Order: sequence, then C-alpha cells, then structure tokens
Amino acid sequence: MKKHLLLLTLAVATTAVFAQQGRVFETRTVKSEILKMERRYAIYLPPDYDHTDRSYPVLYLLHGAGDDHTGWVQFGQVQHIADKTIAEGNAAPMIIVMPDANTKVRGYFNQPDGSFDYERFFFDELIPHIEKTYRVRSDRRYRAIAGLSMGGGGTIYYTLHHPEFFAAAAPLSAATENSKWTVRQGTTEQQTAYTRMHTLDSLLSQTASDEYINRIRQVRWYISCGDDDFLSRHNSRLHILFLDRQIPHQYRVKDGGHTWSYWRMELPLVLEFISKSFMQF
Amino acid sequence: MKKHLLLLTLAVATTAVFAQQGRVFETRTVKSEILKMERRYAIYLPPDYDHTDRSYPVLYLLHGAGDDHTGWVQFGQVQHIADKTIAEGNAAPMIIVMPDANTKVRGYFNQPDGSFDYERFFFDELIPHIEKTYRVRSDRRYRAIAGLSMGGGGTIYYTLHHPEFFAAAAPLSAATENSKWTVRQGTTEQQTAYTRMHTLDSLLSQTASDEYINRIRQVRWYISCGDDDFLSRHNSRLHILFLDRQIPHQYRVKDGGHTWSYWRMELPLVLEFISKSFMQF
Amino acid sequence: MKKHLLLLTLAVATTAVFAQQGRVFETRTVKSEILKMERRYAIYLPPDYDHTDRSYPVLYLLHGAGDDHTGWVQFGQVQHIADKTIAEGNAAPMIIVMPDANTKVRGYFNQPDGSFDYERFFFDELIPHIEKTYRVRSDRRYRAIAGLSMGGGGTIYYTLHHPEFFAAAAPLSAATENSKWTVRQGTTEQQTAYTRMHTLDSLLSQTASDEYINRIRQVRWYISCGDDDFLSRHNSRLHILFLDRQIPHQYRVKDGGHTWSYWRMELPLVLEFISKSFMQF
Amino acid sequence: MKKHLLLLTLAVATTAVFAQQGRVFETRTVKSEILKMERRYAIYLPPDYDHTDRSYPVLYLLHGAGDDHTGWVQFGQVQHIADKTIAEGNAAPMIIVMPDANTKVRGYFNQPDGSFDYERFFFDELIPHIEKTYRVRSDRRYRAIAGLSMGGGGTIYYTLHHPEFFAAAAPLSAATENSKWTVRQGTTEQQTAYTRMHTLDSLLSQTASDEYINRIRQVRWYISCGDDDFLSRHNSRLHILFLDRQIPHQYRVKDGGHTWSYWRMELPLVLEFISKSFMQF
Repeated sequence: MKKHLLLLTLAVATTAVFAQQGRVFETRTVKSEILKMERRYAIYLPPDYDHTDRSYPVLYLLHGAGDDHTGWVQFGQVQHIADKTIAEGNAAPMIIVMPDANTKVRGYFNQPDGSFDYERFFFDELIPHIEKTYRVRSDRRYRAIAGLSMGGGGTIYYTLHHPEFFAAAAPLSAATENSKWTVRQGTTEQQTAYTRMHTLDSLLSQTASDEYINRIRQVRWYISCGDDDFLSRHNSRLHILFLDRQIPHQYRVKDGGHTWSYWRMELPLVLEFISKSFMQF
Repeated sequence: MKKHLLLLTLAVATTAVFAQQGRVFETRTVKSEILKMERRYAIYLPPDYDHTDRSYPVLYLLHGAGDDHTGWVQFGQVQHIADKTIAEGNAAPMIIVMPDANTKVRGYFNQPDGSFDYERFFFDELIPHIEKTYRVRSDRRYRAIAGLSMGGGGTIYYTLHHPEFFAAAAPLSAATENSKWTVRQGTTEQQTAYTRMHTLDSLLSQTASDEYINRIRQVRWYISCGDDDFLSRHNSRLHILFLDRQIPHQYRVKDGGHTWSYWRMELPLVLEFISKSFMQF
Repeated sequence: MKKHLLLLTLAVATTAVFAQQGRVFETRTVKSEILKMERRYAIYLPPDYDHTDRSYPVLYLLHGAGDDHTGWVQFGQVQHIADKTIAEGNAAPMIIVMPDANTKVRGYFNQPDGSFDYERFFFDELIPHIEKTYRVRSDRRYRAIAGLSMGGGGTIYYTLHHPEFFAAAAPLSAATENSKWTVRQGTTEQQTAYTRMHTLDSLLSQTASDEYINRIRQVRWYISCGDDDFLSRHNSRLHILFLDRQIPHQYRVKDGGHTWSYWRMELPLVLEFISKSFMQF
Repeated sequence: MKKHLLLLTLAVATTAVFAQQGRVFETRTVKSEILKMERRYAIYLPPDYDHTDRSYPVLYLLHGAGDDHTGWVQFGQVQHIADKTIAEGNAAPMIIVMPDANTKVRGYFNQPDGSFDYERFFFDELIPHIEKTYRVRSDRRYRAIAGLSMGGGGTIYYTLHHPEFFAAAAPLSAATENSKWTVRQGTTEQQTAYTRMHTLDSLLSQTASDEYINRIRQVRWYISCGDDDFLSRHNSRLHILFLDRQIPHQYRVKDGGHTWSYWRMELPLVLEFISKSFMQF
C-alpha cells in the first residue's frame, strides 16, 4: 500500500512540476522570399508543450522601436510572467511569438513604394511558418496580437488592415500616429495611398463602410497607456475615436510612463484579457 | 450590583468605541443670506474628534445631479470608507463636508443673471461657517475638494475660479462641459460672460495669462473616470487639455461606468491622494 | 449562566477596546518664568491613560525648523503610529510630549548672550511641569528624547549637555552643525563659549574628559538619516565621530530624503528602540 | 511494469525539476597566460539555462580576503538566494561568476612591480573566457559586479579603473582603503604609481577630469555596510566622497557587522538592484 502511495505521490508531483515552466527560445529564424532574407523571432512554448500533443492558441507580441525580438524576453520577462499567469489560472497556456522587426527601415510596415514589405511577410510567411512549425491552433479565435510603442502601433494597424485575423488586440503605450513617420520612398500617389492606410483618421473616418467598421468591432480591444507617457495624449485620442465609431474596447490609464515597468505590469493583464477569448469567457 | 456594573461597563465601552470610528451627521444646516434660505449639509467627523482639541484638515465632497447631501453618506459609504482608510494609515484624519446642492436650479453655480448664487454661498458663507463651527485647519494646504459627475464639474470649476483655496482637487467622472447646460436666465451679454467662466476651453485657452495658469498648476489634481462612463470622452479631453497647458495631474481610467461602484472604489484613493498634501508627503 | 457569560464577554470587549486608542491634545500650555511667556505643547496620552492610575514613561519629541508643536501630530501622524506600535506590542505605552520651539529666535537653544533661554526652559520648567501635570515616571530610565532635522539637532545637544536626563536619544535627519547657524547676540567671548557648547567637535573632542564621554556612552542612541537627505553627509560624520569616541550607537541609512515619509517610516522604530529601555529589554 | 513506469516518471520529473532551479558548478577553470597558471571559478547558471538558447546578463561576484571562489556558494547560499529572487520576479535570470582570487599575494590586484597581474587576468582573460564559454550577453548594460569586504574593494577599484565595463556595481562591507595594504614589491616610483591607482582620494580627487568622473556617474552604485562593521567608518567616508564628487549612488547602513548574515541579507537586494539595469526599469 505504501508503494502505491509512493507512486501516486510521485505521479502528482510530476504533474505539478510539468505545470510550472515554459521555455523561451530566443533566436529562431524563418526564410522570407518576400524580404529576401532570414528573419529572426523569439518564441515562448507553454509548460506542457514537450510532453503532450496539444495545439495551443498563439499571441504575436511586438517589440518597440530600436529594440528587437529579444526585448520582451529580456526586459519584458515574458517567461516569468507567462509562467506565473498560467500557473495562477489567469491565462490559458499559449504560444507567444516575438518577431524581430528591427528592420532599419520602417518597423512593421512596408515602404510606400511597396519595397521591404514586412507586413506582407508577417501575414503571408511568418504566420504560416509558425502554424506549420509549432502545434498552433490556426482559427482566428485562437490568435491574438499585442505590442508596445511602435509595436503598439503595429498591433493597431495590423488589426485594422486584417481584422479577420485576430480575436483580440492589445496595444500598449501605442505609437498611433504613423502618418508622421518619415516616408522615404515612392511616388506622390504611392505616398498618399500609404498615408491613407496608416492613419487612424483615414481608416476610421465617418466615410468608412459600416461593413468594415463592423469587422473592427468583432475584435476585442485592450488599450493601455500611462498618464505620464509622452504618448498618453495620442492614446486618449484613440479612445475618443473608438468611442466615436462605437468600437467596443477596454481603455486603461494607470500611473506611469513609457517604461518597461509599465509593460511588465500590463503583460499579465494582456494575457488574461486575450485568454478570455481563448477560453470563451 | 452586577447589573449596575454591566451598565457602567457598557457606558464606558460605548464611549471608547466611538473613539475608534468617525461619526456622520446627515443633516446640519447653515443660514444663507446670499441664497435667502437655509441650506443643508452632511458632515463626517474623524474618530478622535470628540476626545481631543485637535484641528483637522477638511475635504469638501460634492454630490452629483439629482442627488443631495446624503448621497455620499448612503450610496458612497463615506463613513465606512473614511474610517477604514484612516485606520489603515493611508489617510490623515480629516473632516468631510458634503453640502446639498440640490437647488432645483443649476447645481453648484449661479444663474447667468446672478440669481441664486450657490458658488458665492459656498465660498463666502459655507466655508466660513464650517471653519467657525468645527475645529478645521483653515490654511489652503489643509483644504481639498472632490466630487462626482456634476460635483466633479463643481470640483473643477470651483478650483479653476479659486485655485488659492485648495491644496488638491479630485474630480470623479466629472461633467466637464457646463457650457452645454441649459442657461435659463439673463441677458445675452450675461449668458456670454457666464459661458466664458464655465467652459474649460475659455478658462484654459492659450490666451489665459501665465500667472493664472501657474496658480492652477499649484493645485494637485487627481482625475478619474471609467472607460464605460458616458463622460469618459470628456474626461479624456480634459486630460489632453491639461497636457496642452502643462498642468501636472494624475489621470486614471479604470474598468467601469457612471456608477457608485466606481466612486466607492475611488474614494479611498482620493482620501489617500489628498492626504499626501495634508501629511506633507 | 448565560448572563455571566454576557458580562464576561462585555468585560473582555471593553478591555480590548481600551487597549486600542490613545488621545492627542494639540495645544496645551505651560507658563514660563524664564521666557516670560506661555509656551505651547502637544501631548499624546496612551490608550489606557484615563482608565487607570498607572504612571508612564515619557518621550520628548521635537519638531523641525519652521514647524511647531503640531507638526508631529498632523504630518507625523503620531497618534496613529503610536497606537499601532503599542497595539502590536512593539512599544511600551508611553506619554509623548511635543513642545513648540517655534520661537522665531534660535529654536531649541538660547542666544549667546543668554537671552531667550529655551533650553533652560525645557529642563527647568517644561519637564517639571509635565511630571507634575501627568502621571509620568520621572526616573532617567523612563525618559527619552527624539526629533527631526533642527529637532534632531536639539536631541543631540540636549543629550550631550544633559546625558543624565535620558535613557535613549533618537535624532532623525539631524541638523548636527549648529555652529553655522547665525548667532545674533552677545559679546565675542559669549559667542566663542556658545559655539564650544553647540559644536560636536568641541563637545566630543579628544580632550573631553573620560568621565564625560562615559556619561554619553550610557545613553542608548539611534541615529537615522536618508541617503538622499541634504544632511546625509553630516550624519555620516556624526557616525564616524561617535565611532572615534567609542560611543555605542545604532546608525541607519535608508532610501529617502528630508521628508515626512522618512520620519513616519522611522517613528515606529524609534518607539520600539526607546521602549527597549522602558521595558528593560 | 509499474517499476519501469516509476523510473520513467522519476527521470522526467528530474528534468523538469532542474528546469526550476539554477545550478551551481563549484570548480571550473580557465587557463591564464598572464598569471601562467590555471585559475578556478564557481558559476551559477539560471533555471532555464540548459533548456533554451537564451543569452543571459552576468554578475561577477567577488569573495573576501582569506576566502575563495566557494565562499559565496557555501556561506553566501548563492543558489538558494538567486533561485528564490528570480522565482519571485525580483531579479532577472542571470549568470553569476565567482572567481577565485585567493592568490596568496594581493587579492584582486597586481603587485606594484606589475607581477601577478590578477586585474589584467580578470579583464583580458576571465571575462572573454566566460563570454566565449557560456551564453552571456556581452554589452556593458548586461554586466554587473559586486563583492564583499576585499571583494567590495575589488568591486570599487575594478569599476573605477574600467567604468565602461559595468552597468552596476555593488560593494558590500567594502575594504575601501587599499593604500594601507602592505605593498611588497617594486621600486619607490612603482609603489607611488600603484598607490595613486588604488586610493579613492587619488582617483576621485578634485583634480580628476570631469570626463572621467562623468564616466563613473554612468555606473549605478549600491553601497551597503552594517553599522557594527569595523569597515563602517570607511564606507561612510566613501558615501561622503561620492557626495562630494556628485556621483549618484544608493547608500545603506543596516544593523549588523562583518558577517555572512549581513551579506546573505543584502544579496537578494543586490540582485534586484542590478536587475533594474538588466530589465531597463
């Protein structure tokens, strides 16, 4: 009897241990035909990943300007925070993909002349690569996107361009005003078209089709920016614009600036928010 | 004999217990020459009030439209929350005055024609009455103002009209756009002058004097409004306007609507925030 | 039986309530023949004071420059902190006297010409008044002194001048270098003599008698000053000087500046430290 | 069959358990051309090290006089403390290198005649060896140094000699006054030059160039020493000297002596302090 008890104890201990720690791989690569180069990404695999055949929901988590795919790993402490939030039962086990958009060009977007089209790479090559390489659930309802600063901007525009791709979007301290970024290439027509696609006022203008706005409303949004952040004003404008267009969203303003402290504070709440999509409330 | 002992014991215990809780008086009155009537107010006296000669800082806490001086007592649970926040050491013992602005006219303000001047009553009669009747510290640095909805609007405009009166101001879910309220009385000139004094854009316009804006900057501001509140957009505009005029302020947006749950959640934080003025950080 | 149980319950409840709250009187006065005026003080009486005939140890707690006897009451939250520290069993019930040294002259000291001798008032009039008026244990071992900034300086020099008066001394963020204060009155000889008595280097010089230094060593010292305090350097010098003269003392440097946050953080530790004298370890 | 299952379960559990704790290797070696010998070091690898491709920040942690590379392992409980601080989220996962400076000569420095140049070994051989052998992030912002007693002295002088190498420096109970150590070798000129480089007053004298002092100011400093430590006086002088030269630093004095209790109490705070560099606040 004691022997059985021992076995049982061991089995339980083993299970408990498995439940506790995911793994981060800092530098994996994907070949891009579109960009004609290899692009790097970091990836978090949830605690059970190697000991099961489960498929997992996936979060694409975007870094800020001047940073790369290791930012969320090192400064954002993504492993510690994801492990803890999952262990506490506040987030569903998920895969987190952190691509490197340190492109020396325009971050998450293409140039107006269409060159170096990172956005097309993201949707046409990176996502398929991830879904082919890892056990990822590929329905929209299992896919979310989040990011900070320039990556918050990426989160917003990727979702506005492709709302059918994401169940939830969580821009943090987002750089919302891409139109002011230097546009280096292309004809005047190209630049005008580009600006229209990378400006909130254009995309969400009163002349935008109801059909389009309705698709944006299907995404669950979590928008957060500290009240001392130099982007706080822009995020308040985003809130007002979403209210104007009746796009349901969560909006949070907490004490803080444009700092990793703020983003580490928000990351568990982002994981919890998107897990409500993954776990169907 | 035992019975007498019991009575004695109870009497002593009762006194001692009072000393641990503050007390709320729901309806006290002050005679107003200005308004030509008696006005009511509720008052919270801190735990020690009756057993010491101390003078206390004071918070003027304003109710919303359609409510009266009992709102913060009944719905806001001011006694429970103040007692608890003080007992935890997060707030300084203070007196809280809750005036009745249920004037059936225009809440905290006068009419454009100058009739029913509640604001003049507040500064010229109510504050002096309180400081004469209770042991109140009467320096600016021991006086704060807060309020919800219409009372948040009162908090903002009273402070913008008389910044030298308040160390801290905490508008919650504030109705900021008084200019749109119906103005019932007065000539066109009077209405224009009135609107200028009760509109944020006028008071804080770029043509406002540096001297005036600097006085506004001396006040410590705590502005909070839920993201589901129908006034959320106006409060985000207030945040942007304060940023434009470089008026330091705390801004918070949390999950919630125009509800007493939100205000009860915020009240301890308001008491803590203004106590930082009262306790000199 | 139930009735007895009820009585017992009530008795216990009463006791528990008594154990919980002291009282602060903010403004009491003592007539001074020496200063030819009335001087004010605030006083904290411990929880049981009115319900017993006990005598209590006493702490003299000095305010800083520009403040008065109400500083520790309002900003220092002395009642809340003393009540809590006593209730937790970390401090002995004690009386705390906070005199008003806002003399517009030289704070805790006399003028070089001997005029306005606050120090003589303190020892010859205030202490006797307190011991006559309240149930105070008057042995040295039940008497302590503490203070902040200028009051930390007062704590140090009062103790160096009268070590036989105090079991423990706790200067916080002390202004140690009184010699640099403006000396307004008196002859050159008087000023020289004055400086000798109000300078650490003079009082604790290597030529000071062993007998004197030994008396200083009998006092239990707790010295604390934040590392961001503009007086931090002077307090480190005090530590070194005490080490040089082999005067046993506790020295603490924590994160913080010349702020009430620091002093509120230290007050419970001061009460605990001096209570070790009062409770005989 | 059950037995096999048990073995399997144990094997799997073991792997998983390793993943939750870091590992310490007590004695690894590096060949030194400079010292013409093998030198030993202990190393802590963080929890995930063997199950990921991540690169980690690195802390060089120096032992005291008479001790060796095993001191922090055995007496300092580095594994337990690092594991716990990382698991609590208060420190970033990092590699900790503990070199053996038990050279029977002069600890962390060379002789005045240049012989046995441990410092050159440290910078030119040990650091490159570590960065080649382990997955270490080699930017300055991912490198810190700390140490106790003689190792606190090493921390200070290594950082003063090479400020561009370290994001943060944490000398504990530091032996700051190297100039008084016996200098056994070299000509008078060599000894003078040596003293100049190993004396705080020389390195940080008022004639030191602004450019040099500014480089020292770029390092984040955490200085701590118990008030009963025989080196407490020297550390207070260090604090004063840093204040004189306006070098920002944290300074802590807590109750305690020159003991491992003090250093074990401080180690988690050191890891937390330097992690603020590693995690970008």
